[in-house]
Amino acid sequence: MSKKVLILPGDGIGPEIVTEAENVLVAVNAKFNLGLEFDHGLVGGAGYDANGHPLPAETMEKARTADAILLGAVGGPKWDALEDREMRPEKGLLGLRSGLELFGNLRPAILYPQLADASSLKPEVVSGLDILIVRELTGGIYFGQPRGIRTLENGEREGYNTYVYRESEIRRIGKVAFEAAKKRGGKLCSVDKANVLEVTVLWREIMTEMAKDYPEVELSHMYVDNAAMQLVRAPKQFDVIVTGNMFGDILSDAAAMLTGSIGMLPSASLDKDNKGMYEPCHGSAPDIAGQGIANPLATILSAAMMLRYSLGENAAADAIEKAVSDVLDQNLRTPDIYSEGMTKVSTSEMGAAVVKAL
Amino acid sequence: MSKKVLILPGDGIGPEIVTEAENVLVAVNAKFNLGLEFDHGLVGGAGYDANGHPLPAETMEKARTADAILLGAVGGPKWDALEDREMRPEKGLLGLRSGLELFGNLRPAILYPQLADASSLKPEVVSGLDILIVRELTGGIYFGQPRGIRTLENGEREGYNTYVYRESEIRRIGKVAFEAAKKRGGKLCSVDKANVLEVTVLWREIMTEMAKDYPEVELSHMYVDNAAMQLVRAPKQFDVIVTGNMFGDILSDAAAMLTGSIGMLPSASLDKDNKGMYEPCHGSAPDIAGQGIANPLATILSAAMMLRYSLGENAAADAIEKAVSDVLDQNLRTPDIYSEGMTKVSTSEMGAAVVKAL
Ligand SMILES: CC(C)[C@H](C(=O)O)[C@@H](O)C(=O)O
Ligand SMILES: CC(C)[C@H](C(=O)O)[C@@H](O)C(=O)O
Repeated sequence: MSKKVLILPGDGIGPEIVTEAENVLVAVNAKFNLGLEFDHGLVGGAGYDANGHPLPAETMEKARTADAILLGAVGGPKWDALEDREMRPEKGLLGLRSGLELFGNLRPAILYPQLADASSLKPEVVSGLDILIVRELTGGIYFGQPRGIRTLENGEREGYNTYVYRESEIRRIGKVAFEAAKKRGGKLCSVDKANVLEVTVLWREIMTEMAKDYPEVELSHMYVDNAAMQLVRAPKQFDVIVTGNMFGDILSDAAAMLTGSIGMLPSASLDKDNKGMYEPCHGSAPDIAGQGIANPLATILSAAMMLRYSLGENAAADAIEKAVSDVLDQNLRTPDIYSEGMTKVSTSEMGAAVVKAL
Repeated sequence: MSKKVLILPGDGIGPEIVTEAENVLVAVNAKFNLGLEFDHGLVGGAGYDANGHPLPAETMEKARTADAILLGAVGGPKWDALEDREMRPEKGLLGLRSGLELFGNLRPAILYPQLADASSLKPEVVSGLDILIVRELTGGIYFGQPRGIRTLENGEREGYNTYVYRESEIRRIGKVAFEAAKKRGGKLCSVDKANVLEVTVLWREIMTEMAKDYPEVELSHMYVDNAAMQLVRAPKQFDVIVTGNMFGDILSDAAAMLTGSIGMLPSASLDKDNKGMYEPCHGSAPDIAGQGIANPLATILSAAMMLRYSLGENAAADAIEKAVSDVLDQNLRTPDIYSEGMTKVSTSEMGAAVVKAL
């Protein structure tokens, strides 16, 4: 029974890091006899350049039939000037998330003990940090209608977007978050701005209601401004955080940066049946693309997450995670996580080291 | 020529901290012969409890005729359960901001050298930190229409808010930010989410256009997720940040917390003629209200900002700021900024020490 994995390198450092992750997948495929079949597609700026669209129909078709998707990253200054906003690389990513209904975005923020020094926070504030941010990914202001830029009667222009959530959307992401909290530390913090935004009043109400079905989970609520503050002040107070698309975008990046190891953090975007797309938390880093210095570990760990969540191959996932920990113990570091006394390696050297450690 | 200062204590620790700030104002009023006249009003939960409205008509009338307003803080669990959202304490604050057109919110994030240890970030990351966040305060999603919770045809409810900015609103806050950057380090970073939200596409366009009139200011753009990350990673890269109401709420709290001295940070909310309302960056802290342990320095420094921005009394403002620095040098600390070897003082002891240092 073979399983289809679609690989979408994307833009910037995407192709470089995805190559290493694919090599790792090929290695575990052989070692654990997983029966994975790999296919490739274009998305983002790469899709636009080749097919005139950031999400070519062929890619969407492959994505629909795949069992899981591994994505690098999209976007770059090359496409920033595109007049037609629908053609921008990000639209390819957003189209995949929305088209495949990948509403459940899991973004762990973990401090790797080997990289403790890399954080800009004091060691005692972040040592042992292990937070999971559950971000709603196919609704909210990212997709709300109406949206656009219109000209008012007085001749000036006005930009507008709509932040909207319905009960069922809140419930399905709530379920992901409560289930995750149940399996982890049993603490869930729902982040909103219910003192100002009606849409998050409903969010808070639904989360509160759902808590009754999860007596083993302790639910708390926090305003988003306070959450941003608390992440900086005392991040270890959190276990699982659940929030909407926009706040999740902001808070998950802040949380990832707390660890100092954003080049290490994977993410999963799941549909209701745990079919998923996996990507590193970091972006396409166009400034360092093509130099062979990007850190492939977040993408390699995303591949591990894929094996665990979508393909049910826990042993193979464990093996990859163990191998990543091993190469860190061997003091191998790409430039982003380099510190004195370590051995600086390139993207491909890092990938090869993980394969070897398997 | 007397000047009218309206004092609005608000809720929680509001009354305690405002009392100390008023004492300081009374002292400089006498010393510098400022001719200030003080009046008082109710707002927030206090307004609701006394008059059935978080912004009683009498308070609004006083606010309109005042030359400047000093506000403590509003809100608390006592009023969280209010069914009618229009009666919540926050609505009083939002009504003042909007009713007086206080669109320009200045939120400095400064690390006090005497408090360097209080930050959760490594000293080298934050030492000397001095950022100014310019937040748009009377538009965006905070006030956008339509908004509410409606029932859909299928019977489920949907919450919705509207994120909207028109050109003129962007221009007037842009002007505040460019002018501030010109007077400071000459660097302005405009924060948006132009890769996803149309309203911020317009924002970016207008800021870019305005930059032509400020050749001495170097304008850059950053996505809000990246800005949250960069504030944690390397906050000293910023001089002035300008952004909308919602992103400004989140980023200014994160920035304030970087300094570890959120109990020290004042803020100003100005209209087009520099009439303004001044408040501490922190909230009403209901958990410690009435205990006499709140830090009054942010409110005292807000009073100094008021003298400088709205009342043109720079010498008196300088004197207050110098007095605050002096009490820190005397090692006096409220519990929030206490560290070993310092002298722990109460709210009123701290206020009295500032008056004495004047
Ligand atoms: C590229 C962009 C559209 C995307 C987002 O905002 O969701 C990215 O920042 C992310 O967090 O995955
Ligand atoms: C109390 C609340 C409405 C307010 C806001 O969100 O603007 C506060 O968080 C602030 O930043 O002044």
